[in-house]
Amino acid sequence: MPPRYEVIGIAGVVEVRPGDDVARLVVDAAAAQGTPVATHDVLVIGQKVISKAEGRLVRLSQVEPAPATRRMAENLGRDPRLLEVILRESRRIVRMDKGVIITETHHGWICANAGVDQSNVDADTVALLPEDSDRSARTFRERVHALTGAEVAVIVADTFGRPWREGLTNVAIGVAGVAAMRDYVGMPDSAGRPLQMTVLAVADELASAAEIVMGKLDRIPAAIVRGLRLDAGDAGSKPLLRDPARDLFR
Amino acid sequence: MPPRYEVIGIAGVVEVRPGDDVARLVVDAAAAQGTPVATHDVLVIGQKVISKAEGRLVRLSQVEPAPATRRMAENLGRDPRLLEVILRESRRIVRMDKGVIITETHHGWICANAGVDQSNVDADTVALLPEDSDRSARTFRERVHALTGAEVAVIVADTFGRPWREGLTNVAIGVAGVAAMRDYVGMPDSAGRPLQMTVLAVADELASAAEIVMGKLDRIPAAIVRGLRLDAGDAGSKPLLRDPARDLFR
Repeated sequence: MPPRYEVIGIAGVVEVRPGDDVARLVVDAAAAQGTPVATHDVLVIGQKVISKAEGRLVRLSQVEPAPATRRMAENLGRDPRLLEVILRESRRIVRMDKGVIITETHHGWICANAGVDQSNVDADTVALLPEDSDRSARTFRERVHALTGAEVAVIVADTFGRPWREGLTNVAIGVAGVAAMRDYVGMPDSAGRPLQMTVLAVADELASAAEIVMGKLDRIPAAIVRGLRLDAGDAGSKPLLRDPARDLFR
Repeated sequence: MPPRYEVIGIAGVVEVRPGDDVARLVVDAAAAQGTPVATHDVLVIGQKVISKAEGRLVRLSQVEPAPATRRMAENLGRDPRLLEVILRESRRIVRMDKGVIITETHHGWICANAGVDQSNVDADTVALLPEDSDRSARTFRERVHALTGAEVAVIVADTFGRPWREGLTNVAIGVAGVAAMRDYVGMPDSAGRPLQMTVLAVADELASAAEIVMGKLDRIPAAIVRGLRLDAGDAGSKPLLRDPARDLFR
């Protein structure tokens, strides 16, 4: 039997509001479309619906930018209120040029606009990344178990740009119930020579696999990845964060 | 009907040698395991078997490193013959430190060791990236059509590291019969506001989806991605190469 798995988009999730039980909304939508969640499934959930349910929303009309932020925003050609929110979500500015702002978030992710997103929320509102996406993933996982009895893994995902290659890819920013990395260090290759330093970011690959059916228009905010037996793990998404001391690219 | 697709590893591909018809080997293995290749499939093929079939192999015992290469190799703690091969495959050194060599290949890819790989070839031999992976993908695609009548898309993939995030992911280095990018620029989001600058690197996401079943041990060198209707395209992998003038990270 060849290894195989399936990716199933979950459509029909209703508009998520602060305080909603998003795990219930996703579980119900999966059941309603005839693909109920089951043990061993990996559920990949778009960050946006998690952020909305957790109330991680900011009204730009209530943001008062600092004077320095106003000047930077003018230079960049960006909304000073949005820039103020981005700076508050950041621990470090990586690049600020040509209208683009790349920062390191308080979680340690390096991404455009600190993950602050204006799409798929109402016109005056922006969505922040979850405060702790690993906690969001764990909570979601426990809630799915309470609702259905299924033992699933959960990946909270967002689309990030990257250096050197064009286009965004979906990556994992929160992980629960599965190891984020798959490790081939020291396993022999087919010529019997040990493989060195081969660690695959399987959580990012699962997020990417899910994105292909999820789209950006918020109508398919989650996907089931079904048929894999992955390594368990409880380190969350932290193994995906590169130690600055080991990063030749910083 | 929710959107869904399947990823099927192709096992049982025999050891590939220079001059082999690798498309036939993959098509035969897929048929033998009961999952014959069909129209609309995306075939993701590991770079290594393509390189072997194209004879992109170098015997280290026949490489004479330049004097400067010997000195650099000593500083890096790397085999000077391997470093010589890496430099020949590169147009630019991006980083060279702590035993790690990151270069820009003649194709424009930025990766460790110019993609030169010692795993899964015999002990004295290293494998280079294909000379032109888009041509390799096109040739593979045409050969699959000639053998089976099926109209497939083909992605030649390799596992690359990336800045900022730990772990390798599988990415596309050759593309035929499918658009590498999926473009959401200007499409309205669910609040009716135009999405800006949202371009997904779907070829990289497909490569990542396939890696989850392919593994690194050369026993599953290819996978079928089945059930998607993707945009056609004939620009190959070039859209994935970031224009240096637009890259804030260089």
